[in-house]
Amino acid sequence: MSPSPVADATRVAVVLLSGGLDSATCLAIAREAGYTCHAISFRYGQRHQYELARAEKLAQHFDVASHRIIDIDLAQFGGSALTDPSLEVPKSDSVAEIGTAIPITYVPARNTVFLSLALAFAEVVESRDIFIGVNALDYSGYPDCRPEFIHAFQAMANLATKASVEGDTVLTIHTPLIALTKGQIIAKGLGLGVDYSMTLSCYDPGLEGMPCGRCHACLLRQKGFKENGLTE
Amino acid sequence: MSPSPVADATRVAVVLLSGGLDSATCLAIAREAGYTCHAISFRYGQRHQYELARAEKLAQHFDVASHRIIDIDLAQFGGSALTDPSLEVPKSDSVAEIGTAIPITYVPARNTVFLSLALAFAEVVESRDIFIGVNALDYSGYPDCRPEFIHAFQAMANLATKASVEGDTVLTIHTPLIALTKGQIIAKGLGLGVDYSMTLSCYDPGLEGMPCGRCHACLLRQKGFKENGLTE
Repeated sequence: MSPSPVADATRVAVVLLSGGLDSATCLAIAREAGYTCHAISFRYGQRHQYELARAEKLAQHFDVASHRIIDIDLAQFGGSALTDPSLEVPKSDSVAEIGTAIPITYVPARNTVFLSLALAFAEVVESRDIFIGVNALDYSGYPDCRPEFIHAFQAMANLATKASVEGDTVLTIHTPLIALTKGQIIAKGLGLGVDYSMTLSCYDPGLEGMPCGRCHACLLRQKGFKENGLTE
Repeated sequence: MSPSPVADATRVAVVLLSGGLDSATCLAIAREAGYTCHAISFRYGQRHQYELARAEKLAQHFDVASHRIIDIDLAQFGGSALTDPSLEVPKSDSVAEIGTAIPITYVPARNTVFLSLALAFAEVVESRDIFIGVNALDYSGYPDCRPEFIHAFQAMANLATKASVEGDTVLTIHTPLIALTKGQIIAKGLGLGVDYSMTLSCYDPGLEGMPCGRCHACLLRQKGFKENGLTE
């Protein structure tokens, strides 16, 4: 786990790209650090497909070496409002109303599954750097966004692969946003030229991907822009 | 990681079931220990589909609570003779000829991906017990079959889920075969009534799933039966 990647133009990174604000910033940071970036996104049975369209645009914009959308149906397991349309996405009027319990939008083991597939891909493209835009400050309380989870995943990954056994390879899970507020993430991205109008954070968008404005992701996003004296 | 599961009839287990000798024995052990078993298999782009048909039969035979075949295309990443038909599966005349290097049949991060999906499923069915028939003695040298990998995965899994944060849940990855020879695995299975003619180990079977007899999986299987004074 490394909050600030060291620039190395010869290195190849795998970047998880959802199409949201955080992953777009994360990709910008990896590019700025000089990595050749392979972006991966997931068609996992999420509530809407708008974010994947955004991911495709972002991947083009940041001129990635490749962009791959991986199909893995997590909706078959259920248990989350993000994969089960019969469950309602919680809405609030303000960030202050967001509780501390892990919400129903949590998707069981999602980041574990995504990082595992990123690991498989990284091994094949001989990358030792995976970037994920998790954040443990202005976030929805998901267990698999916490530093201790990322640290444990990295330790496991370094025992999982052929490269970890045969080579001198040490795989790093880069989490450049993990300790930033949403405002700091947006400030960082604006400094790197991220066009946030290309991103979509909403858990429950309306027609044409219009953000609902009241889910936790929307509220945290609004807070981030406000902290920068901006509105969208 | 626990080599010998404690019997607990009230507990639910998720059992990884490939259709091979090891996973069939592992399922028999989990059933014998009194677990209600949910079996999962993977259509991951493997060289042949015969093993999935065997997995279905085994699941029925052992009267599992459910059997689920999960689609996840690992062939899209390549890098293994088990997912890329253009790569040849290594063949030998005897176990003694099997080298110590990790062979081309290694599938990048396969067990990490499979266990991650088992973890997602386990969380939804409120299971804290995942069974996997990995073996680190008579095996193909895959890094993700080793005890240190399983131990690290378990540590990560116990930080990954809602259940691990909110409940008093400790998730165990059971590996009852990890320290057994192939002969000991077969002896154990025979004692539990496993019909090994239902299983398929071969990496490169011919028509109707006929084992090639010369891949590493076939050779190790033959060795196991021989150690029990048996042939198939």
